[in-house]
Amino acid sequence: MKPEGISLIGFGAGSPGGKQFRAQDPARGVALDPAFVSATPGDVERACFLAAQAAPVLATLGGAERGKLLRAIAAKIEAHAAPLVARAMQETALGEVRLQGEVTRTVNQLRLQAGVAEAGDWCDARIETALPDRKPLPRPDHRSMLRPLGPVAVFGSSNFPFAYSVAGGDTASALAAGCPVIVKAHPAHPGVSEMVARLVSEAVRECEWPEGTFSLLFDAGFEVGQSLVRHPAVRAVGFTGSRQGGRALMDLAAARPEPIPVYAEMGSINPVFLMPGALAERGDALAEGLANSATLSVGQFCTSPGVVVLERSGAAEEFVRKLAARLGAVPEAAMLHAGIKANFDRAVKERAKVTGVRTAVGAGLPREQTESGHSAVAEAMADKKAPPTGKCSAAPVWFETDAETFCGTAALKEEIFGPSAVIVWCQHRNEVLLVAKALEGGLTAAIHASASEAAEQAALVAVLADKVGRVILNGFPTGLEVSTAIVHGGPYPATSDGRSTAVGTRAITRWARLVCYQNFADDLLPPELQNANPLKLRRMVNGEWTDGKL
Amino acid sequence: MKPEGISLIGFGAGSPGGKQFRAQDPARGVALDPAFVSATPGDVERACFLAAQAAPVLATLGGAERGKLLRAIAAKIEAHAAPLVARAMQETALGEVRLQGEVTRTVNQLRLQAGVAEAGDWCDARIETALPDRKPLPRPDHRSMLRPLGPVAVFGSSNFPFAYSVAGGDTASALAAGCPVIVKAHPAHPGVSEMVARLVSEAVRECEWPEGTFSLLFDAGFEVGQSLVRHPAVRAVGFTGSRQGGRALMDLAAARPEPIPVYAEMGSINPVFLMPGALAERGDALAEGLANSATLSVGQFCTSPGVVVLERSGAAEEFVRKLAARLGAVPEAAMLHAGIKANFDRAVKERAKVTGVRTAVGAGLPREQTESGHSAVAEAMADKKAPPTGKCSAAPVWFETDAETFCGTAALKEEIFGPSAVIVWCQHRNEVLLVAKALEGGLTAAIHASASEAAEQAALVAVLADKVGRVILNGFPTGLEVSTAIVHGGPYPATSDGRSTAVGTRAITRWARLVCYQNFADDLLPPELQNANPLKLRRMVNGEWTDGKL
Repeated sequence: MKPEGISLIGFGAGSPGGKQFRAQDPARGVALDPAFVSATPGDVERACFLAAQAAPVLATLGGAERGKLLRAIAAKIEAHAAPLVARAMQETALGEVRLQGEVTRTVNQLRLQAGVAEAGDWCDARIETALPDRKPLPRPDHRSMLRPLGPVAVFGSSNFPFAYSVAGGDTASALAAGCPVIVKAHPAHPGVSEMVARLVSEAVRECEWPEGTFSLLFDAGFEVGQSLVRHPAVRAVGFTGSRQGGRALMDLAAARPEPIPVYAEMGSINPVFLMPGALAERGDALAEGLANSATLSVGQFCTSPGVVVLERSGAAEEFVRKLAARLGAVPEAAMLHAGIKANFDRAVKERAKVTGVRTAVGAGLPREQTESGHSAVAEAMADKKAPPTGKCSAAPVWFETDAETFCGTAALKEEIFGPSAVIVWCQHRNEVLLVAKALEGGLTAAIHASASEAAEQAALVAVLADKVGRVILNGFPTGLEVSTAIVHGGPYPATSDGRSTAVGTRAITRWARLVCYQNFADDLLPPELQNANPLKLRRMVNGEWTDGKL
Repeated sequence: MKPEGISLIGFGAGSPGGKQFRAQDPARGVALDPAFVSATPGDVERACFLAAQAAPVLATLGGAERGKLLRAIAAKIEAHAAPLVARAMQETALGEVRLQGEVTRTVNQLRLQAGVAEAGDWCDARIETALPDRKPLPRPDHRSMLRPLGPVAVFGSSNFPFAYSVAGGDTASALAAGCPVIVKAHPAHPGVSEMVARLVSEAVRECEWPEGTFSLLFDAGFEVGQSLVRHPAVRAVGFTGSRQGGRALMDLAAARPEPIPVYAEMGSINPVFLMPGALAERGDALAEGLANSATLSVGQFCTSPGVVVLERSGAAEEFVRKLAARLGAVPEAAMLHAGIKANFDRAVKERAKVTGVRTAVGAGLPREQTESGHSAVAEAMADKKAPPTGKCSAAPVWFETDAETFCGTAALKEEIFGPSAVIVWCQHRNEVLLVAKALEGGLTAAIHASASEAAEQAALVAVLADKVGRVILNGFPTGLEVSTAIVHGGPYPATSDGRSTAVGTRAITRWARLVCYQNFADDLLPPELQNANPLKLRRMVNGEWTDGKL
């Protein structure tokens, strides 16, 4: 099982004439075989044409069939985990255990969405039967449900080559909803993208779904992605990546003659609030947990903590010294690709120049800063090892600042993608609340508090619940549960659409819209809305939920 | 109870210094007292400031309290129906019975949303309890629900001075969700807007809700509305009106530093497909029903039929002759305001010039068209009465064309707001399907078919279900049920967001977003997610729906 370097347009191959590019091994700094051919405008056109043809067919396929396809894809990925992980290791420099775990998560996500499709209740079927004798007017029979939007363009992320990529969360939920999917592969891991895509394509063929159910397009640049988002056949977009990239797609989609929904997940700074009692109770464990959470996979998680907020005290300074020692001991490691590493370097260099901000951990730390009484971290890091030299390698670079500077500086509230964070020192509890209020929209916020402190956090929780999609008590934001109750979303700029979640069973509804059938004969209705309730759905019938027949 | 002509900013009055305008009586063509003062930038700022202050308070008010406020508003409107209707008649030229019915509908909508808020299930509460011993990783406790977005800007419509205006559907569902509302009054009916707003404001005060819960802003132009949509405190927009107006707000909202959701309902052409068997079975009733539906309130409904599709036959031509006779007998009547009348005149004039289109019913019909063998309508209308002369008055103006012209002419697929429609003659059944496929996104589509024909409409239904929010069998699109199963929405350009409905119990969710609480102590959780289930909600607990405790 080896990548061939060509887009998959339905069951066929893309045009061989496009521009070529290669994946890089970021750890070794070498180009990988084979060369990949960027999709041509004709390839995009054909993928969209096939998807548009497939869409009405998929809309009629039942949940059982959708589940079957998703389970077939999951089984194939599971069966080919070893070569997939091997290629992903080369292309992303992520570790084997992490990638094996990600394959497992991806397979679980596919099966979770299969279960959602099979159960069928997600479609929110509602029935109001006719009241022909009602005065002054009779009531007609109304039956409504969610139906698939149509072809979806999915942009694979750089940091999750499996779970948010070709057969990742968006693809799984879109197929579960009955939407054809056209994936724009992330150019940093085209090989594993193609390998997964071939498995998806095999499953589509074996399950006898239409050819246009799935396509994969390569492009080292932006043209293919832009064409996809502009294409009239495309009805929605899923994206996981940078704010800049996500916003560009949002703007393109909003400027279309017929604007379409974009679900862009653009990262987050994931603030962690550390209360004094929690530090007193379990400072060592918190230092370990925070250092781990912030440096996992070289800090390249959208849930990676990027801001740590604490009240200044001797104990807090002692905690930060311990934290800094742990961070300082984290070996440098290759980031996902040279572009991300270059962005990381530029961002930390710019942040270091912000007035009122001190570099606290990491490369380039000027010795004179260690003399500042404010720099507990810098002290601990005074005899840090030499800066990393590997081309794509990065080690933690942390900053510290005071609450006033943080609140007044927009640049400090933006995510630096990679192992970097800002420690925000507050003078008192009110400042902690001001910092929370100053935050942009995010995916998560975490509070660590002792049992007695937790009870006093209502005001902070209220502020954070208005800012993020998930508020965590005494936990770290990394390590996301894929489940029925999870929310992976949040207000802009964390996502383009804070009403939706990218993860969990609820994600399926982002690819659907409500349709109502008025006064329909039973045999013209979709099975979800028929009297006999052949799919045994939980439906709202005349205002009451029931899983019975009419 | 008389309007005073000034914006309501919370419990206070707007600045008296703004530009002035007056409502017009479109039937009599005279200006009405009093003069209304446009809100100033300072008024907008204060309304937004108050709303932002109120938002976190409203988010904590329970469903019972939200229901109480909505019921108080409903009771006040009900109690003042007579003066409200009297003023609305002057400002809109709509009939008394129609307006009384609309007040009833508005009151019912408020009570429906009160019931939704009181029941509380709309928040989609989901709980997954912790599995501390799970391997390889423990599962944390996750609890999630929908929470209010924050301040909502609502733009009142011209054609529903009650039901889609100050205390209309969007306001009712936004308050039910726990969002403060700032209404931009439609300048064509400022008097009735102010009267309703004072009732809302009284109810807010009596229920002891925060001052920022509700404001009403006047403006004869666009500045106030644009400022509202751009204001950082505003988190979502509800709009009912023209495509041009809705798209302008969509573009403004999408261009914000933090884009926000816009729910714009921009009208629809509401095609009606008439099958031969239905014409044979009940042609007279269909002609009567269609003529009524298309001319109700001078065709000024967003669900007014604007396209009639039939296969050419002697019987169909006979039907159209009967239809035309009925349409021709509809007396001219005043439209909502002079601007709408001017747009109507311009639109029908332009449509009459389209190659392949014949004016079939109505003013300005050139006699020579009656000689065309294609113009069954024109024949019936040959001795039509003289064109209407009243300044705002309009009578039906209908067109006819062939399927090929319709499919190939974008302008024919756009709504003309008012009593105008296009009859599309098809040569055969396949052409009917082509016409359906050529349609833009719409709110509704209706099919009239005999019992045996209905069974053959699966292909047409599938095409229409992909185009509109409500597909109707043997009924007309006007007369919308406000209920649990209704959908009033549809793909762009009918609305800005086809995933949502403007009408019915589901509308509440458009003003909310998901938030997840991880590992929270029970007393820090909102009551919706607490173990004891104090609100007795139907919740998903560990994957199963239950209304019990944990």
